[in-house]
Amino acid sequence: MACRSRIVPTLKRTRLSPRYAVSAQQLRAPLQCRWQTTAAPDAKAQEGTKIIKFTTDSYPEIKRDSRFAEITPEHVEYFKGILGKESALIDGVTKDATDDMEPFNADWMRKYRGHTKLVLKPGSTEEVSKILKYCNDNMLAVVPQGGNTGLVGGSVPVFDEIVIQMGRMNAIRSFDEVSGTLVADAGCILETTDRYLADRGHIFPLDLGAKGSCHIGGNLATNAGGLRLLRYGSLHGTVLGVEAVLPDGTIVDELSKLRKNNTGYDLKQLFIGAEGTIGIITGVAIQCPQRSKAVNVAFFGLESFEKVQKAFIEAKGQLGEILSAFELMDRNSQRMVKEYTNNKSPLEDEHPFYCLIETSGSNSEHDTEKLEKFLEDVMEKEIVLDGVVAQDETQIKALWSWREGVPEAIGGFGGAYKYDVSIPLAEMYTLVEDTRVRMEEAGLIGDSDSHPVKDVVGYGHMGDSNLHLNVSVRRYDKAVEKALEPWVYEWIEKRSGSISAEHGLGLAKKKYIGYSRSETMIGLMKQVKNLYDPNGIMNPYKYI
Amino acid sequence: MACRSRIVPTLKRTRLSPRYAVSAQQLRAPLQCRWQTTAAPDAKAQEGTKIIKFTTDSYPEIKRDSRFAEITPEHVEYFKGILGKESALIDGVTKDATDDMEPFNADWMRKYRGHTKLVLKPGSTEEVSKILKYCNDNMLAVVPQGGNTGLVGGSVPVFDEIVIQMGRMNAIRSFDEVSGTLVADAGCILETTDRYLADRGHIFPLDLGAKGSCHIGGNLATNAGGLRLLRYGSLHGTVLGVEAVLPDGTIVDELSKLRKNNTGYDLKQLFIGAEGTIGIITGVAIQCPQRSKAVNVAFFGLESFEKVQKAFIEAKGQLGEILSAFELMDRNSQRMVKEYTNNKSPLEDEHPFYCLIETSGSNSEHDTEKLEKFLEDVMEKEIVLDGVVAQDETQIKALWSWREGVPEAIGGFGGAYKYDVSIPLAEMYTLVEDTRVRMEEAGLIGDSDSHPVKDVVGYGHMGDSNLHLNVSVRRYDKAVEKALEPWVYEWIEKRSGSISAEHGLGLAKKKYIGYSRSETMIGLMKQVKNLYDPNGIMNPYKYI
Repeated sequence: MACRSRIVPTLKRTRLSPRYAVSAQQLRAPLQCRWQTTAAPDAKAQEGTKIIKFTTDSYPEIKRDSRFAEITPEHVEYFKGILGKESALIDGVTKDATDDMEPFNADWMRKYRGHTKLVLKPGSTEEVSKILKYCNDNMLAVVPQGGNTGLVGGSVPVFDEIVIQMGRMNAIRSFDEVSGTLVADAGCILETTDRYLADRGHIFPLDLGAKGSCHIGGNLATNAGGLRLLRYGSLHGTVLGVEAVLPDGTIVDELSKLRKNNTGYDLKQLFIGAEGTIGIITGVAIQCPQRSKAVNVAFFGLESFEKVQKAFIEAKGQLGEILSAFELMDRNSQRMVKEYTNNKSPLEDEHPFYCLIETSGSNSEHDTEKLEKFLEDVMEKEIVLDGVVAQDETQIKALWSWREGVPEAIGGFGGAYKYDVSIPLAEMYTLVEDTRVRMEEAGLIGDSDSHPVKDVVGYGHMGDSNLHLNVSVRRYDKAVEKALEPWVYEWIEKRSGSISAEHGLGLAKKKYIGYSRSETMIGLMKQVKNLYDPNGIMNPYKYI
Repeated sequence: MACRSRIVPTLKRTRLSPRYAVSAQQLRAPLQCRWQTTAAPDAKAQEGTKIIKFTTDSYPEIKRDSRFAEITPEHVEYFKGILGKESALIDGVTKDATDDMEPFNADWMRKYRGHTKLVLKPGSTEEVSKILKYCNDNMLAVVPQGGNTGLVGGSVPVFDEIVIQMGRMNAIRSFDEVSGTLVADAGCILETTDRYLADRGHIFPLDLGAKGSCHIGGNLATNAGGLRLLRYGSLHGTVLGVEAVLPDGTIVDELSKLRKNNTGYDLKQLFIGAEGTIGIITGVAIQCPQRSKAVNVAFFGLESFEKVQKAFIEAKGQLGEILSAFELMDRNSQRMVKEYTNNKSPLEDEHPFYCLIETSGSNSEHDTEKLEKFLEDVMEKEIVLDGVVAQDETQIKALWSWREGVPEAIGGFGGAYKYDVSIPLAEMYTLVEDTRVRMEEAGLIGDSDSHPVKDVVGYGHMGDSNLHLNVSVRRYDKAVEKALEPWVYEWIEKRSGSISAEHGLGLAKKKYIGYSRSETMIGLMKQVKNLYDPNGIMNPYKYI
C-alpha cells in the first residue's frame, strides 16, 4: 500500500526533504505580533487603522450608560498625581491624542473600536487600587487591558471607558526552582515569562498563538486554554494564587504559593475567566511543571473524522502521560495555509483530515519508541494514511506552523466569521459539514468573487473537544451573519456544547450566553457581578 | 559501602523476603472502614460510642443560635411526605432513636458529637431541593453529611441541626470512555467509583485513605487533596461540573461535561472546598485520566531532611511525567507503625527519614528503567542510603501500608493532636523538630505514663509541601493543647503557610483561620456566605 511505503521511512527517522525545513521560520508564530504589525484580516479593503468601524456603529443598539460620568481635565489631573509621570498616561482629554490612542481603542482583529480618551498605565498594585477607587467614587467606567489579543472585543472600550493598560506591571516577583512556583505581575508577557522559566528548566503551563503579546493576567482573566490544556490542565487547577483589585480599591491579596490550602472559599477562582468585570488581576502565582527534555511532533493524514477519533483513542492509550497536544485540521484549512504561505505541505498527497500530535517527556529514547510504536500501530490498523515525524526543532516548528498558521491564513483572504466552541467529540466535525451545507443552500459560498463566502473550515484542539469553526469570507456581509447566527448557537445548544470554549464572551458573545447557560445560572452570575461591582463600572456592555 | 551492597540486589529485582509480602493484607487501607468499626484512637479509655464527649461540652463557649427553630413532629411529617418512605428518615423527634442516630451524630475520630434528632436521606436532587427550601423557610439548621470521614468535625452537628445524609444518591449517571468524563451522584463512595472506572480503563483523579467510606460529593465539598494531587492536580482543575442545591432550593445545574467552557463566572468553584456552608453538592462531573498500565513503588531511607529535598528534586527531574506520589515519613512514624502492627520493616536498618515514591505510566519497561536509573543515581550521589522496589501488587500494597498505616498506628496508642499544614518545602520538617523541643521544654514528653505526650511525628505529601504533624498522646490533656496552640499556628503564619492544607476548617480550625487569611479575605468570604445563605442555616458554627 502506498500509505505504508510512505510512512516507513519516516518512522525510521529519514530526514524530511530540505524544502520542508526551510519554511519553518517563515511560518512560525503567526499570531505573536501586536495588532499594529499584524496583517489585518481585510487589509486590502481597509488601509490604515482609522477606518476600523466604531463598535458603536456596528452595534447601534448599545447605548452609553448615562450613569457614567464623562472624563474631565480635573479627573486627568488626579490620575497624573497618582501615576507620577507623564509617560504612564495618554491624555486625549486635554489634547489631541487620537493616533496614540488608537492601539488601545481598536482590537487586533480590527472588528471593534472604542472612543476612549484616556489610557492609564499603572506601575503597581497600589496605583491600580487608587485608580479604581477614584473611578468607582466618580462613576467613571473602565476597561482593563492586557496584550489586547482577545477575539471577542473584551479588551477595548465601546464608548469613552478609561483603558487601564497593565503593560508596566511586568516583573517576575519570585520563582522557586524546587516547587516550581512562579509569582509574577499580571502584565508579564506570556512568551517572556516562559523564556524566563525555560532558563530555569520549567515551563509555563499554558501556551497559545498570541504568546508574543498576551499578558499572563489577561490569560487568567479570559481563562485561556490553548494548546497544552490536554497535558497541564486548566488554569483553575494550575493557578495557586491571585492578587486583584476590586472596584472599591480593595486589594484581594491571595498570592498563595501553596499547592494545598483549604482555609475558606476559593475566591481567586472567580477572577479566572471573569474578563475584568469584577476587578483587575495584578499578580499571579502559578504552578509551573518541569520543562520536558524530549519533545516530538508527528503530523499525519486521515480519511475520515471517524478515523481521527480512533487515532485519538489510540494516542491516549499508547502515549498516555507523554501526550501534550492532539490537534485537528481539516483539508480546507491546510489548503488555505498552503495558498497563503506558498509552502509545500508536509505530506505528499492530500487527505480529508490532518492531525498534529506532540509528546513531551523526560526520556527522549522512551518517547521516540512510544511514538514510533504508536504510528506503526495506527498505520497497520489503517487508521492513519500517511505521516511524518519532525527530526529537529526547526521541523517541529514547521509542523506546528501548519496548525498555528491557520487563523492568519484564513484572515489573509478577507475576513472570517469565527466560532470557538466545545462539542461532544463524536459530533464535533459535523458542525463544519452542516455549516457548509447551510452556506451552499443559501447560495453564499462559491469560487467567484460574487459569493461572499470563500470557504468553511474546521480545526482545533481535538484533545479538548474544542473546535474552531471559521467561515472564511471575501468581505463581511450581513447575509452571511444572518445565515450563521443564531443557527450555529442553536446547533451547539442542542448538543449541550459551549458557545465559547476558550475565547470568552466579551462583546461578541454576550447576547448568546443563553445558549450555553440557564437563566438560573445567569441570575446567579449577575448576583456575583453586583456583589463586587455594584456601580457596574468594570468593563461595561460586555460579558453576562 | 553497606548501603550500596544493599540496594544493588533490590535494583536487580531480587524478590523481597516472604515475611514482607505476608504483611500486606493486614495493613492495607487502615482508614477505609466506617467509624463504627474503626479502632478508636483512645479505644482503651473509652469503651462504646456513647461516651464520646458532646461537642457542646468540649466547646462550652459555642451557644445555640436562637434564630433556629426546634424540630417539631409537624416538621417530621412534612419531611416524611417529601421522602416517601420510612427508611429514608431516622426520626428521633417522635420516638427514641438515640442508638440509630449515633453514627450520624459522632465523627469517626470520636472527637465531636452532636445532638441531632433527625436524619434525612434524600434520594434525588429534587428531594434535596424541597428539604432545603423547607428548612430555609422554617429556619431549621442543617448539616450535610457524606461518608463522615472528615478530621475537623465538619460533617456532624453541634446542636440539633438536621443531618442530610447523601448515601442514597449513589448512582453513576454517565461515563464517556473517549473523553474520560464521569458524571455521578454526590453520594457515590470514592472506592466504588474508582472500581467502576478501573473496569473501563480509567482512574478517579483523587485517592485517599478514607476511600472505602468517603463520598465524592464530600471530597469536593472539602476539596480533598490526597495522595496523587502531585500527578493529577487539584479538584479545581479536574472537576468539570457541579450540581448543587442552594438553601433556598435553587438547583445550581452546572453539570457541564466540557473541558473548555468560557461562558461566565465559574461559580461551581465556590462549592469546591465550601464544606457544605453555601449549599449541598448533589452531582459531580469530573475528568478521569486513563488508568496507568504500569505502577511501580519504591521505598527508601535517607539520613537527613536535606537529602529528602535533594531526592525530591532528582525525582521530579528524572521521573517527570510518571511520578505519581512522593511521600515522606520520619523515623518515629515508622517506629509507631512497627510497634502497632508488629510487622517487619521493609529496610534492615533504621534511618532518620523514609520516602515512598510511586510511578504510573503507560509502558512498564520504560518506567522500570527510569525508576532504576533514578535509584542508582541517588545511591551513587549518596542522597539515599538504602531502598527496596516492590515486585508485585501485594508488595506495592505492603509498601504503601507503611505510609497509609501511620494515622491508625498513632491513634492506637491513645490519641493524637493532628495538624495538617502546608509549609514552604525547605522548612517543612523544622516544624516537627521545633514541636518536639517545645514538648520537651514543657516537660510533657517522655517514656513513662506520667508524661501525656508519647511522641512527635511527621509525615505527609512531600510533593505538595503538605506535612502531617502528629503529637501522639497517651491521653488528651489541656496542658498539651495549651503548649501547642496557638504556637503551631503562629509558627506557620510566620512562614506564610496554611493552617489547613487539605482537611479543611470545620469546627476544629474555625477560630484559627486568621493565621492563614487576612481580615480582608475573611470579610470577602463572609459576603459570599451571606449571599448564598442569608439565614445561616447551612452547617452553622463552623468554617469561617
